[in-house]
Amino acid sequence: MLDKTSYPSLFADEIAKQFHLSRKYSTNLISNLSPEDCQAQSMEDASPAKWHLAHVTWFYEVMVLKPFEENFAYWNPEFAVLFNSYYNGIGDKHPRSKRGLLTRPSLTEVLEWRTNIEARVNQLIKEKASDELLWLIQLGINHEQQHQELLLTDIHHLFSNNSLLPTYSSQSKQISPDAKPFQWIQGVSGLVETGHEGNGFHFDNEGPKHSAFNQPHSIANRLVSNSEWLQFLEDGGYQNFQWWLDAGWAWLQAENISAPLYWRRDAQNQFYRFSLQGNSPLDLNAPVLNISYFEADAFARWASQHLPGFAGARLPTEFEWEAFAKVNSQSSDLFGKAWQWTSSNYSPYPGYQPWSGIAGEYNGKFMINQMVLRGSSAYTPDGHSRSTYRNFFQTNTRWQMTGLRLAKDGI
Amino acid sequence: MLDKTSYPSLFADEIAKQFHLSRKYSTNLISNLSPEDCQAQSMEDASPAKWHLAHVTWFYEVMVLKPFEENFAYWNPEFAVLFNSYYNGIGDKHPRSKRGLLTRPSLTEVLEWRTNIEARVNQLIKEKASDELLWLIQLGINHEQQHQELLLTDIHHLFSNNSLLPTYSSQSKQISPDAKPFQWIQGVSGLVETGHEGNGFHFDNEGPKHSAFNQPHSIANRLVSNSEWLQFLEDGGYQNFQWWLDAGWAWLQAENISAPLYWRRDAQNQFYRFSLQGNSPLDLNAPVLNISYFEADAFARWASQHLPGFAGARLPTEFEWEAFAKVNSQSSDLFGKAWQWTSSNYSPYPGYQPWSGIAGEYNGKFMINQMVLRGSSAYTPDGHSRSTYRNFFQTNTRWQMTGLRLAKDGI
Amino acid sequence: MLDKTSYPSLFADEIAKQFHLSRKYSTNLISNLSPEDCQAQSMEDASPAKWHLAHVTWFYEVMVLKPFEENFAYWNPEFAVLFNSYYNGIGDKHPRSKRGLLTRPSLTEVLEWRTNIEARVNQLIKEKASDELLWLIQLGINHEQQHQELLLTDIHHLFSNNSLLPTYSSQSKQISPDAKPFQWIQGVSGLVETGHEGNGFHFDNEGPKHSAFNQPHSIANRLVSNSEWLQFLEDGGYQNFQWWLDAGWAWLQAENISAPLYWRRDAQNQFYRFSLQGNSPLDLNAPVLNISYFEADAFARWASQHLPGFAGARLPTEFEWEAFAKVNSQSSDLFGKAWQWTSSNYSPYPGYQPWSGIAGEYNGKFMINQMVLRGSSAYTPDGHSRSTYRNFFQTNTRWQMTGLRLAKDGI
Amino acid sequence: MLDKTSYPSLFADEIAKQFHLSRKYSTNLISNLSPEDCQAQSMEDASPAKWHLAHVTWFYEVMVLKPFEENFAYWNPEFAVLFNSYYNGIGDKHPRSKRGLLTRPSLTEVLEWRTNIEARVNQLIKEKASDELLWLIQLGINHEQQHQELLLTDIHHLFSNNSLLPTYSSQSKQISPDAKPFQWIQGVSGLVETGHEGNGFHFDNEGPKHSAFNQPHSIANRLVSNSEWLQFLEDGGYQNFQWWLDAGWAWLQAENISAPLYWRRDAQNQFYRFSLQGNSPLDLNAPVLNISYFEADAFARWASQHLPGFAGARLPTEFEWEAFAKVNSQSSDLFGKAWQWTSSNYSPYPGYQPWSGIAGEYNGKFMINQMVLRGSSAYTPDGHSRSTYRNFFQTNTRWQMTGLRLAKDGI
Repeated sequence: MLDKTSYPSLFADEIAKQFHLSRKYSTNLISNLSPEDCQAQSMEDASPAKWHLAHVTWFYEVMVLKPFEENFAYWNPEFAVLFNSYYNGIGDKHPRSKRGLLTRPSLTEVLEWRTNIEARVNQLIKEKASDELLWLIQLGINHEQQHQELLLTDIHHLFSNNSLLPTYSSQSKQISPDAKPFQWIQGVSGLVETGHEGNGFHFDNEGPKHSAFNQPHSIANRLVSNSEWLQFLEDGGYQNFQWWLDAGWAWLQAENISAPLYWRRDAQNQFYRFSLQGNSPLDLNAPVLNISYFEADAFARWASQHLPGFAGARLPTEFEWEAFAKVNSQSSDLFGKAWQWTSSNYSPYPGYQPWSGIAGEYNGKFMINQMVLRGSSAYTPDGHSRSTYRNFFQTNTRWQMTGLRLAKDGI
Repeated sequence: MLDKTSYPSLFADEIAKQFHLSRKYSTNLISNLSPEDCQAQSMEDASPAKWHLAHVTWFYEVMVLKPFEENFAYWNPEFAVLFNSYYNGIGDKHPRSKRGLLTRPSLTEVLEWRTNIEARVNQLIKEKASDELLWLIQLGINHEQQHQELLLTDIHHLFSNNSLLPTYSSQSKQISPDAKPFQWIQGVSGLVETGHEGNGFHFDNEGPKHSAFNQPHSIANRLVSNSEWLQFLEDGGYQNFQWWLDAGWAWLQAENISAPLYWRRDAQNQFYRFSLQGNSPLDLNAPVLNISYFEADAFARWASQHLPGFAGARLPTEFEWEAFAKVNSQSSDLFGKAWQWTSSNYSPYPGYQPWSGIAGEYNGKFMINQMVLRGSSAYTPDGHSRSTYRNFFQTNTRWQMTGLRLAKDGI
Repeated sequence: MLDKTSYPSLFADEIAKQFHLSRKYSTNLISNLSPEDCQAQSMEDASPAKWHLAHVTWFYEVMVLKPFEENFAYWNPEFAVLFNSYYNGIGDKHPRSKRGLLTRPSLTEVLEWRTNIEARVNQLIKEKASDELLWLIQLGINHEQQHQELLLTDIHHLFSNNSLLPTYSSQSKQISPDAKPFQWIQGVSGLVETGHEGNGFHFDNEGPKHSAFNQPHSIANRLVSNSEWLQFLEDGGYQNFQWWLDAGWAWLQAENISAPLYWRRDAQNQFYRFSLQGNSPLDLNAPVLNISYFEADAFARWASQHLPGFAGARLPTEFEWEAFAKVNSQSSDLFGKAWQWTSSNYSPYPGYQPWSGIAGEYNGKFMINQMVLRGSSAYTPDGHSRSTYRNFFQTNTRWQMTGLRLAKDGI
Repeated sequence: MLDKTSYPSLFADEIAKQFHLSRKYSTNLISNLSPEDCQAQSMEDASPAKWHLAHVTWFYEVMVLKPFEENFAYWNPEFAVLFNSYYNGIGDKHPRSKRGLLTRPSLTEVLEWRTNIEARVNQLIKEKASDELLWLIQLGINHEQQHQELLLTDIHHLFSNNSLLPTYSSQSKQISPDAKPFQWIQGVSGLVETGHEGNGFHFDNEGPKHSAFNQPHSIANRLVSNSEWLQFLEDGGYQNFQWWLDAGWAWLQAENISAPLYWRRDAQNQFYRFSLQGNSPLDLNAPVLNISYFEADAFARWASQHLPGFAGARLPTEFEWEAFAKVNSQSSDLFGKAWQWTSSNYSPYPGYQPWSGIAGEYNGKFMINQMVLRGSSAYTPDGHSRSTYRNFFQTNTRWQMTGLRLAKDGI
């Protein structure tokens, strides 16, 4: 947690309202899902929807109610084990790969537990809204938002394992195609202020604010499109080692990768993409999605040599991206379309300290062997991201809504 | 399938009645289970309850309706892939390890599909009850019974993965303790008629009837008890290589095995056993359950040297067991308590031929690297087993209701 | 070890001579090998030639010298760990998969150690040739013979991993092609005396002598040839699930198996076979070699339906094979060409007891999940095998010189 | 390769001399090793000594002789496959994990091949010493130096797998203990020139020279000692998750890590360390060695809280290290004792381009999921390293001679 002086005086009413909306948004997300849909876990990286709903509730019970509520008692003390994700400091954990085996508690009981915890947190806000409490609730809201995105991501992955190709919702948010011509825009170079230290909520990994040094560079006016990716694929990009990092080439061969995740070819060799809206012909103008860092990096190397106008293409650093986002804040695809791979390793900023106390395991311990993504995706809840926000995944991850924006040296 | 001449003229009414009862028994089994309970798959060897319900329905749709029904149409042709277990001859299969990911169709739809198929099979019985059709339905009934047992076995295993230790039913069939004193009974030696060739339903692996040669031997009057097993355990049986087959010793060390599956020790060092009735203190008079072949074999070697009166103890052959069952048919624990490991490999009987046609993959292709178990367990539906019945599992399997009855050379 | 009464009074001189010859044969085997050739281990199942030479020496040091020699002292007590194969009763073992890492002791020191142990064993024979000692030395000789065969088998496998395809010896024993026409011969049916209980040396697993019951059957006059195997391959035998056991089909797909081990196809689609004599065009008249049980079993099922005259073909049981060998002892390919897969699981004979004492781990603990092979191969030392000899390997093993002889029901 | 203009005019005589010395140094390294020692491969990451000797020779044959020698012919064209390490552009490769199986060619032939190639390279230097040729030979020398270090590292690892604990040499270079008191030294902050662009030989990954921004910081006057590490170990450092990155904690538990590699505890609980000089009591004043990045990072976090005077301790960035090395060039432990983990990911410098042509796969394709180490170790050949040199390994690697020097924020 932050020191008392480092966070703003928050208004209890506003927090209560945000809290209510975020809780409601979670349950809205499962309105089209059956208890079975909410039960299954498609791989170790993903979690069941029910587990997400339970875990964010566990977070409030353990992080907010337990330290602040008088006469606190667990709804069920076993849940403290079942729905702990990765907090060694809090105690035992149910094995991550076996979350899909927790058929009890039922979805119904999890929803009852949610309602109970929600009421008690509301009571706390009314009765003893200290700065620390309000900050913790804000953390809870942001934490739940992260799991809202994961819930959609994981349902997307789960449904892709079923040859019935179920539709989650025909009304889900559409990624509006963006066919505007590709252009390089001059980036912000020299020493740039990076990171967050202001009054608004932010994660510990976004600070401390510090100077980073950007070389002269340019940055793309839009995300890489499916059309451009298709050219890479059809030029044999997945069969030519020269575009790939050594570890990427080994990954591609071991996993037999030859297209972005969720692309499928029909008998007539037409490409389809499976999304939460079902299976549809590939939209060539839409940004490419569900690619790993290895693929993004290989594409940039290929594009630099093969796509007219793309000479010198590479991934941007996270500092180049952040500076660009701060000066181009109205650009239509910085946020809400795709998480954008950067060439920056997920490392602590100079002087970084994890939050103290039980939230100390939130971010810092994951700062190794992952790459930073910036922006946000169509699955990210409104208001969750910002220009200093750092998402991060391993280089072979691609079930997230990941795309890329190119950069190059020089202007 | 059998040749026309080799199966009895069956009475349609009787088959219709058995069919109805077996279908109803399946749905009764899940009356205490939630849709979530029916969804989860705890390991590759196990299947979700919903999958079992769907698969036995698929069996009727593909094996009975498809060849016999006029104007046959699939309820959903995709289900032919989703719920095929291991029949390569029928086409593609959904990967076995991913059965728990099939959240669609829902349990509700599976039950509707069951009802539909059931009605159509009933119609067929009424309209064109040939010998072949009736035999196939009888096969379907026996097939469903096998999955009824597996459903319970798999729910047992699933629930054991949840630290809430859920109770399936407090009324489930109890294994009545059997504390009678241990005794050797003279076995049937010489050439013995083995196997099934009569009129009643039997699986292909029970025949042909043939002569097997039994050496002079004795056989135990009852199953090995938890009390005896506890002595083995407390004598360091799981820590002493000398009792174990080499592959068993490797298995035990790799899997860190030190007691039967579902045994747990509490802080006071008391043993409990988790069953479908929940967690209870170990019943010392009850037969030991959930042991692998490796454990059964090691126990026999230990008992031969350490248990008074057990000198020479070994596992019986399946032929010794069958001869014993035929002459001691009223013995109280031949059936209904535990599948009993024999020292016989699961091999074809001399002259064995798999059924012809689509049921040809039912048994024969599994006749390797498995051991035969005889008898039946508390989870076996009434009327499903008989003295010639051959169950079979790999030597490290123990989530089944497996126990043992000892034998020895000489009389 | 056997009881005193159960083994013959042996003549010390004869044993001393056999001992000398067998020791010399081992060192002859490596006369064409470099220290590097003797060092490498190509897979966990195989061992380095140097390790074989050391292990058989360890056997004499621990099993013969240690109990019998006055003032016994180890050449190097660490060797007792380094060269123990699988005797838990003797103490720690160097990990099997890391035998190739023992670059010390050098081959030179191992040969010195061999000479030292050999001299001391000779001294013992001279000084105190009891029946027990002589029997143990005979066991040592037979043990060394087994490792002589393994040494060749393992060098064959090692060299196959080197694209230089080295030649071990151009003078090695040739398997004389045997093009005689295929014929069924009437087998010995009814109760047949099986196993060994006579005066000559035999392993514990060959007894006790007992009655086995053979159904009426016929047996092939020769081994299956490369020509017949090629027809199986060219008929798509490796691509059609219907010939295969379920576990065999899974093995074949996981390992991408499409021909016997050591077969290679050149650019003109001609088949070659790599042997200790190097790479040569496939000899169509020679017996097929280096096939797994799964392949042998699948071939029989295919041949039964597709090869003229082979209707009903299956593998023989070990009892059928043994009875055949005893009445057809002059048949030219019972021994010395290929170990012949039988359909018999490697199980203890009725009444089997392992040797007592330190040799007790020799055979019994491996009697599970393996199949019996009968006969002997071109790599088997002269005089090592006999009609009661039981070799055994797992169903997916094929780096041994394994072939097959067919049988069928009826006469 | 570099453009013509970017490398210095080199003097052929000097290169010829360096070439000769480096070749001789390689063969000196194996003077105490047997052919067996040179054959074995202890794990996939390591290579046999013979393979190292062959691979550096292959490098000259393929990179120097093939493009420059008239009437070039391979010593043996198969060697181009056998001894290719990771150059996809050059063709097929023998599988990395099976280098220990190449018993042919023998060590003797590899040494003959070395002599042949050496003579031909010398001839080339005499006859047509172009700048490009000389640069390539310089690359060959530096490449061979890297493999000289690996050869020692790999022999160290190989010998550690043998319970005889062989001694490589009692005269090997000793790491002189350095007991001087720990002190923080002010680091160089602000924009610092980083990387190499000068005339001397350097790898592509050391450039381009560019500005990096160092925050104000201090850096330790010496490496972390075994004494300090022992305090970490005895304080339960390997049992407390709070010091560890999440991936590090998972690694430690999966691999059962509780001390640096090569530390052993005797029955009296005294620590020993196994080195090329054999097993010796742990020298408390010597720098700690053979630690992974995960361990180095965890130690820093622990030391910051537990070692007096170490508050704020962390790993230095590679830019902090380089700036320190340039101003403290006479510090006694920058080079020659231990490769020093930095907190910098192994990423390309801004504007980095791999060499063109066949050397293009040398460095760039490995720039992911590895951390930079600076300095050099006792196994590094004299003259091989420099202040801009970037070594790199994965975060769980510890068979290299890796240690650490601490840094902290502020001055």
